[in-house]
Amino acid sequence: MVELEEPVQLTQAELPAQEECMEVVEELPSQGSHIPCGQCSMCATSLGCDRCVYPCTAGCNQLEAMLKKKNAVLVDGVVLNGQTIDSKAREQFFEKAFRMIIEEAVCKATDVTEKVCEWQPPEKLKKLLDLELRDSGEPHQTLLQLCQSVIHYSVKTGHPRFFNQLYAGMDHYSLVARFITEALNPSVYTYEVSPVFLLVEEATLKKMIEFIGWKEGDGIFSPGGSISNMYATNLARYKCCPDVKERGLSGVQRLVMFTSEESHYSMKKAAAFLGIGTQNVYFVKVDDRGKMIPEELEEQIQRAKQEGAKPFLVCATAGTTVLGAFDPLDKLADICEHHGLWFHVDASWGGAALLSKKHCKLLKGIHRADSVAWNPHKMLMAGIQCCALLVKDNTDLLKRCHSAGAKYLFQQDRCYDVRYDTGDKSIQCSRRADAFKFWLMWKALGTRGLEERVDQALALSRYLVAEIKKREGFQLIMEPEYANVCFWYIPPSLRNMEQDQEFWQKLHRVAPEIKERMMKKGSMMLGYQPHQGKVNFFRQIVISSQVRREDMDFLLDEIDLLGKDL
Amino acid sequence: MVELEEPVQLTQAELPAQEECMEVVEELPSQGSHIPCGQCSMCATSLGCDRCVYPCTAGCNQLEAMLKKKNAVLVDGVVLNGQTIDSKAREQFFEKAFRMIIEEAVCKATDVTEKVCEWQPPEKLKKLLDLELRDSGEPHQTLLQLCQSVIHYSVKTGHPRFFNQLYAGMDHYSLVARFITEALNPSVYTYEVSPVFLLVEEATLKKMIEFIGWKEGDGIFSPGGSISNMYATNLARYKCCPDVKERGLSGVQRLVMFTSEESHYSMKKAAAFLGIGTQNVYFVKVDDRGKMIPEELEEQIQRAKQEGAKPFLVCATAGTTVLGAFDPLDKLADICEHHGLWFHVDASWGGAALLSKKHCKLLKGIHRADSVAWNPHKMLMAGIQCCALLVKDNTDLLKRCHSAGAKYLFQQDRCYDVRYDTGDKSIQCSRRADAFKFWLMWKALGTRGLEERVDQALALSRYLVAEIKKREGFQLIMEPEYANVCFWYIPPSLRNMEQDQEFWQKLHRVAPEIKERMMKKGSMMLGYQPHQGKVNFFRQIVISSQVRREDMDFLLDEIDLLGKDL
Repeated sequence: MVELEEPVQLTQAELPAQEECMEVVEELPSQGSHIPCGQCSMCATSLGCDRCVYPCTAGCNQLEAMLKKKNAVLVDGVVLNGQTIDSKAREQFFEKAFRMIIEEAVCKATDVTEKVCEWQPPEKLKKLLDLELRDSGEPHQTLLQLCQSVIHYSVKTGHPRFFNQLYAGMDHYSLVARFITEALNPSVYTYEVSPVFLLVEEATLKKMIEFIGWKEGDGIFSPGGSISNMYATNLARYKCCPDVKERGLSGVQRLVMFTSEESHYSMKKAAAFLGIGTQNVYFVKVDDRGKMIPEELEEQIQRAKQEGAKPFLVCATAGTTVLGAFDPLDKLADICEHHGLWFHVDASWGGAALLSKKHCKLLKGIHRADSVAWNPHKMLMAGIQCCALLVKDNTDLLKRCHSAGAKYLFQQDRCYDVRYDTGDKSIQCSRRADAFKFWLMWKALGTRGLEERVDQALALSRYLVAEIKKREGFQLIMEPEYANVCFWYIPPSLRNMEQDQEFWQKLHRVAPEIKERMMKKGSMMLGYQPHQGKVNFFRQIVISSQVRREDMDFLLDEIDLLGKDL
Repeated sequence: MVELEEPVQLTQAELPAQEECMEVVEELPSQGSHIPCGQCSMCATSLGCDRCVYPCTAGCNQLEAMLKKKNAVLVDGVVLNGQTIDSKAREQFFEKAFRMIIEEAVCKATDVTEKVCEWQPPEKLKKLLDLELRDSGEPHQTLLQLCQSVIHYSVKTGHPRFFNQLYAGMDHYSLVARFITEALNPSVYTYEVSPVFLLVEEATLKKMIEFIGWKEGDGIFSPGGSISNMYATNLARYKCCPDVKERGLSGVQRLVMFTSEESHYSMKKAAAFLGIGTQNVYFVKVDDRGKMIPEELEEQIQRAKQEGAKPFLVCATAGTTVLGAFDPLDKLADICEHHGLWFHVDASWGGAALLSKKHCKLLKGIHRADSVAWNPHKMLMAGIQCCALLVKDNTDLLKRCHSAGAKYLFQQDRCYDVRYDTGDKSIQCSRRADAFKFWLMWKALGTRGLEERVDQALALSRYLVAEIKKREGFQLIMEPEYANVCFWYIPPSLRNMEQDQEFWQKLHRVAPEIKERMMKKGSMMLGYQPHQGKVNFFRQIVISSQVRREDMDFLLDEIDLLGKDL
């Protein structure tokens, strides 16, 4: 029952007088001969081009012509008399632009004989692109050239030799889905405005939950694994101290969360953002394969308790960023159960292995998690961004934790079951339909197709590892479990050196130098980093189903070619 | 200088024996006649169709055929011998799908003679769509039908008669840009991997900052105005108590933030998420036009101080969600200056008026803000999502507040100026290139074109207001300043009633009933809500440049038609 009161009574004085804001065409001062005004916004000529979108607002033939049309009305200097957009010209532009996108950003961008990138340093690239935003618009031909330059100078992340990040490749089904969502421009907060995409999200989450091994659960697609991890942190906090939502953390016992030294930096960002504090993230030591050591976790929990702090969350990682390591989930789950802690698994990168009968054992125990972050935009190639946060709870925890109950958006007197409205589960208001691209891809390939994608990427990684072992000058950092192949390239000049400090200092500079050379050549892209005391090494990520065995061979040949004189 | 240590020495035993993981084709058991395996993942037939993407993994002709190719290698049951995707079939699918998208999701979806929505209740829609994800993929023809259904049953937010949310319409230039970013699939964290899009973001932010009236500043595009408001809250907190980033809020004096009763619900969500607590959002009273009353803000600040709490942030709204009201920024800035409080302006909705010489006075004083949230995806039609958080500070506050300094991603030994890497300003890791669609649209239309877009929308709103005043049975809630036109429709049966409780109760049910009827008919969509003690009223939002004066007339005619028997 809403509160009722008298409506605000509007006096006529409060309303603008009609003559102030509107004139019909007959009342316009008659214009003699045409006076060019130079304000045609599309062509910047004085006469108005034939594809003008907007009429000039001051006296040129466009305004005159438009006002002569039937029922023209002038309000606040704006002519309101029907369609003002020249849709034909726009459609032609659209058609040409689309052709270019297909040729340049789809076909050429995934063609192994083309360059991965067209490197230019920032200051030079600024000159090559016309970045400035001006008062007048550019003609279509200029816009098309601009789009072509944008594509030309962009890194081709769909190229078979882009091995630089934890995502790569191009999936045509996902791309079709993404074009559909861009055209339809939905926002998934209410069933009313996004009926299909909300049901698609529900179906996709349900299927992902099935692969995690939960009987039921809840979830939401979020703009990134980092945000998913923040959701998990907030859920864990809410479960542990529900009052914090209303009262805040001030005056509350210090809360402590646990994650491994190898976990993603977003856990630190989550702690900072949520007011927990980065010092209250206790980093747990890992073994020499990058996996969290359960005994160390136990020790850290004891430490926090002895300090008088309140442990509330353990984040395990399934597929670490650099090494691709999987924490021992079962053992960590035991510890969380014992201490009554929320168990979150950041499977943003490794979650894809759940779809592979051969590799799902990497995530053994994940069904014991309270929440899971899983990004199908990484290994499964669904396109940036596609990130699910999945929650085992089935008591509407997501909603209770995040709701604000805005009446203007989530009315209860709707003609459908408002439980389909997901907006109050989210920290966002408008939210993209990211589930759809994954769902369509899954429809197209089936679970088996997705499984084969994972199996192929991991088989290629194993092949690369075997080749690295065979070749002189390549040294594997460690045997990978997943698609991260980490290795040093040791140029001939260093091969017979004693491995002293000078050697490591020199080796540290090898990867950046080779990276710079490959970028400038545009032949491929892979990452490097120093890590846990080790000097810069390459991190090769194999994902895309367009990658061939030959590309693995090429990668090693090319590193050798680029670095043999170092 | 990195820490150096001995590399991990790998023993041969740790590496998988080559024979375990790899067999060349000669070593495969010879297969006699073809044994269909039924596992062709694409066509689900036993023989493999001619557009198979993946070979069967168990004994069918596909595997045999592939292994006969030169240099075939079998690793972990996966054949690695070159391109495995039938790109021709995919391209054909892609071409057909694109045609359909243009016809159904672009042309028909924006055609005023077509329906805005094809309403189905959730349970029925589930049956109409084949949502289930299966082991096998669907053939292309089925996928095309599926895409068609998805479009058919989706709400057409680009339709000229979609007035339901604070975004609407379709801009063809933005759409081209969005197709480009979907095809290129960038993530804007480092210049290395996103050179063009980072420069485009920089140029766009710079121009927006110019319109706010700052001499310099910083900013970032974020996934939604709610997240922008969270950024602002965190920046304000960091400025006030920098230690909180590391130490957290536990033990810190209670922090209080201020926003109006009419502000967006995301401020409450921000307080909950950031650990400040919703009770520590002090809601400031508004006047009868929905504007924050400065004297009430002053009182609330005094109250917080008297309670021993620490005020840290005032959030003003430029364009409230329901009424479209603008807070008096200059007066609020005075108060913030006096008390040394961070002054954030949530101009997610109203920011567009900055581009209009005629209407920018609505935001007078915005240059005095410390941060501004502004969503070009709303009034300016850039497409969901396109949201900037702009910050006046030029001392790298965004980065200092949000950085985690991940070495694997933000190496300092790169061949370019790493200040172009934006990743550490963000709470996200991967981040979409949302600035690009706005930038291309701005390039295409020029500032003048964007200005005319705003002026046209507001002129249409004024026209609608004048029509509402003329017509019997329509009652304006209040004179709008912006594009929110709020009104009641009073059906003939209520027109001569005394305005007692029964009248209001009956009127309360009118808008939901008309809304249901218009949804089921598919003729248009506009929102309604109860608000501040007033019973359900319609909130009509005018945005799209495809909307004509005739659509305003239609809207009122249609409401009358649908509701006259109530």
